[in-house]
Amino acid sequence: MTLFDISDAPAALEGPLVRARMTVAYDGSGFHGFAPNPGVRTVGGTLSEAIRKVTRSPVELTCAGRTDTGVHAWGQVVSFDLPADRFDPPALARSLNRLLAPAIVVRDLCRAPDDFDARRSAVGRTYRYTIVNRPVADPFLARVAWHVAEPLALDLLRLGCDPLVGEHDFSAFCRRPKQRGGEGPEASLVRHVRRAGWTDLGDGVLRFDIEANAFCHQMIRSVVGTLVDVGLARKHAGELLGILAGRDRSKASALAPPHGLCLWEVAYPDTGAG
Amino acid sequence: MTLFDISDAPAALEGPLVRARMTVAYDGSGFHGFAPNPGVRTVGGTLSEAIRKVTRSPVELTCAGRTDTGVHAWGQVVSFDLPADRFDPPALARSLNRLLAPAIVVRDLCRAPDDFDARRSAVGRTYRYTIVNRPVADPFLARVAWHVAEPLALDLLRLGCDPLVGEHDFSAFCRRPKQRGGEGPEASLVRHVRRAGWTDLGDGVLRFDIEANAFCHQMIRSVVGTLVDVGLARKHAGELLGILAGRDRSKASALAPPHGLCLWEVAYPDTGAG
Repeated sequence: MTLFDISDAPAALEGPLVRARMTVAYDGSGFHGFAPNPGVRTVGGTLSEAIRKVTRSPVELTCAGRTDTGVHAWGQVVSFDLPADRFDPPALARSLNRLLAPAIVVRDLCRAPDDFDARRSAVGRTYRYTIVNRPVADPFLARVAWHVAEPLALDLLRLGCDPLVGEHDFSAFCRRPKQRGGEGPEASLVRHVRRAGWTDLGDGVLRFDIEANAFCHQMIRSVVGTLVDVGLARKHAGELLGILAGRDRSKASALAPPHGLCLWEVAYPDTGAG
Repeated sequence: MTLFDISDAPAALEGPLVRARMTVAYDGSGFHGFAPNPGVRTVGGTLSEAIRKVTRSPVELTCAGRTDTGVHAWGQVVSFDLPADRFDPPALARSLNRLLAPAIVVRDLCRAPDDFDARRSAVGRTYRYTIVNRPVADPFLARVAWHVAEPLALDLLRLGCDPLVGEHDFSAFCRRPKQRGGEGPEASLVRHVRRAGWTDLGDGVLRFDIEANAFCHQMIRSVVGTLVDVGLARKHAGELLGILAGRDRSKASALAPPHGLCLWEVAYPDTGAG
């Protein structure tokens, strides 16, 4: 925090700070992603502004996974610091829900150990991607699922998952992060996928669940876009190993749209889940 | 149809007419109900305008159940007439879905017997009402379910349904229709409820299904509002018989909000369902 931040909010940061841990769900439709961005409606910006309003203390949020524009969350985890005398978890959760529900909802709020960090302490993330696979769209799932009109072969979708599981360099499925001034080593895009699979929920609703230690930027949407091409027999399931090994992003398919994606759950060493 | 309507659209109504039967689903959130209403965005107005655009023939729609502002439908049935040479059901359905999906979706479209009337031929209607019964709202169900924060007793909700089943005068739960110029006999508010029950879908999601030959205006929202008062122990389940018999609308509870309600299915003698 810079001097400017402090001088801009002199009432804050008095007394000892405690660390808060909050689990939030949100419909990402109306937000330009999580990361606060002045002049733009983001989940993080909206949340921190509401926390400041209620506690009169400015906060800086750390989240477990920075969701992109239009991406939803059921179990996003956020950590932040508040002066101990202004941190009343049940009252704060109620006030935030009064201000923000139903677009953003606080599902849980508690005090965390001082070294808890929503991003760095996380040991696993699970994302869900939903597809409506029917000739005609569904008015009630339109905001949370990708409508794919041509029939998908579930056995091919499943076959396509196998090569993803394990520790791999996912360069072929990721937007490479920008290097700052060309300094330092290139960020690793090696991730450990523990689980990836499709569930048929009936009536053409297909759900993809993928769990990893962490994900690179746009990785899941790129994986889903590629798997859908496999399910439509536009790509062979056998090609996925080669795409992974080739580390060439142009070999993966176009990104699946953001509104089908949801950050489902974050795992921590203490509880298993957020 | 008046002379004015015909002179206003001279290109239409040439050649023999055929009757169309269409099943549509819609998210009622963005519409001021079904009934066409100049200058206002309604489901019926949007649909008939799209049909006119595609077929170049003005149509007058008849629907099985006129849904109010904000009420959804999964199986609304609509009938209308088109010149035989302009009625190509698969092509028309595709064009309408391209124009209107996902807010309004044509699920089925076929030719019906000349005497088919979506409203008068219907022998039963099933509506669904969804409640999210959790302390905190759900961002993903906010458009289609009523959020009730205080815990509802499912056994009381179910007990409250029993007196509704059968043939009753539902004046206590209905908005009485306006009499036109005081003429004619007062419209009957006797309806035959064949089935009414609650299903616990888990995670606090409760679904109310009610089937009757027909419903009076606002009847289901009034019934659900009253049942929720029973489920919260603000009213006794035993009071419902008295409320029904009293035919006094002030004894029923406030209307449940419209966005939890969905016209689920319409039954006809031929197919059973729309």
